[in-house]
Amino acid sequence: MSTPTDRLRELGLTLPALPTPAGTYVHAVRTGRLMFLAGKGANTDETGKVGREISLEQAYENARRTGLVLLAVMAHELGSLDRVARIVKVFGAVNAVPEFADHPKVINGCSDLFVAVFGERGRHARTSVGMSSLPNQIPVEIDVVIECAE
Amino acid sequence: MSTPTDRLRELGLTLPALPTPAGTYVHAVRTGRLMFLAGKGANTDETGKVGREISLEQAYENARRTGLVLLAVMAHELGSLDRVARIVKVFGAVNAVPEFADHPKVINGCSDLFVAVFGERGRHARTSVGMSSLPNQIPVEIDVVIECAE
Amino acid sequence: MSTPTDRLRELGLTLPALPTPAGTYVHAVRTGRLMFLAGKGANTDETGKVGREISLEQAYENARRTGLVLLAVMAHELGSLDRVARIVKVFGAVNAVPEFADHPKVINGCSDLFVAVFGERGRHARTSVGMSSLPNQIPVEIDVVIECAE
Repeated sequence: MSTPTDRLRELGLTLPALPTPAGTYVHAVRTGRLMFLAGKGANTDETGKVGREISLEQAYENARRTGLVLLAVMAHELGSLDRVARIVKVFGAVNAVPEFADHPKVINGCSDLFVAVFGERGRHARTSVGMSSLPNQIPVEIDVVIECAE
Repeated sequence: MSTPTDRLRELGLTLPALPTPAGTYVHAVRTGRLMFLAGKGANTDETGKVGREISLEQAYENARRTGLVLLAVMAHELGSLDRVARIVKVFGAVNAVPEFADHPKVINGCSDLFVAVFGERGRHARTSVGMSSLPNQIPVEIDVVIECAE
Repeated sequence: MSTPTDRLRELGLTLPALPTPAGTYVHAVRTGRLMFLAGKGANTDETGKVGREISLEQAYENARRTGLVLLAVMAHELGSLDRVARIVKVFGAVNAVPEFADHPKVINGCSDLFVAVFGERGRHARTSVGMSSLPNQIPVEIDVVIECAE
């Protein structure tokens, strides 16, 4: 059975370098078996509102790249993606125009990646919402709660 | 002492059918004693901004019906509402016009239901906020963290 | 080694009185070692959008005062700030105009306070986002997940 690390390689993906937190906080805090990750954006310079400057397709890809940053945090904190027992909860915030209605299709970019890498253990509870603004006007910000292997 | 299942019947309430998740995710994930539920809307076809198309009274009722959907998720995941040990945290997102200020009165629709069904165990920590948009322009989206009975 | 209670005194800070929850909910719920705190605003009468009525400097100070309210909740629930083992996760919501981009600099007001009071144990994972509205049009709302000492 292939591991998450295997699958990442099979998918031709490499993890991006970790960004420096843009404030007085850390990438992640572990408490017992749970780990709470800080909200992240993609490592691109895309900015703007989804539904105006950013199309649905661009936003999906931006959410996918945000997922890659979150994977990089997990790998960094745990030493390996193979030590993730479960993706528990995803909070997906879309910087969208007020009429936007396709938030789930955007955040699927991150969720699809997690399921591709972790299989059934990548399936998570999720909340997708529309923000009127995000830090530096990034199109998507996502945070995650995971369960760590013992 | 009446159980949550008793109280639901006494209140004349029936749980709605579970909706299909609108994306790559599941209704809930349990980790230890905690269960994180996905964000849900009411099983109605109401859409629009609270404070414009949707009145405060309609929004309260919409939040109450969202609470019923969340109860349906709990009953489905745990086999019975009687296996909920505590409602821990409620996150209530209101799809509102920028001038709206009565978010707590809206989310009370869900919170009042939880207290009616679970009594003291239904009392929770809560965050109520105003979104510029929500999936499919639903008026209210709510997610919950609960503690499960052993 | 000085305790959080010592440091609060050294910083010349006193905790504000706890506000009454503006709805059917409680200040905090503990489950195992974790405690989920309800979203709070500052104990001021400042209202308005950050980037319009409220400047970045005012918003930072508002977030700091919101942090003081959250410290008051922790002290009330646990008997003493010295029983906080770790600030785990901060969710910071800024009631901002759509063009606002400096959410992290606002929420630093709360994060800087937590680090000043708790030291390394005050460092947390964080999500900062921009809301189109907040209850009573407060500029900032913040909730927290903490780990309690055994």
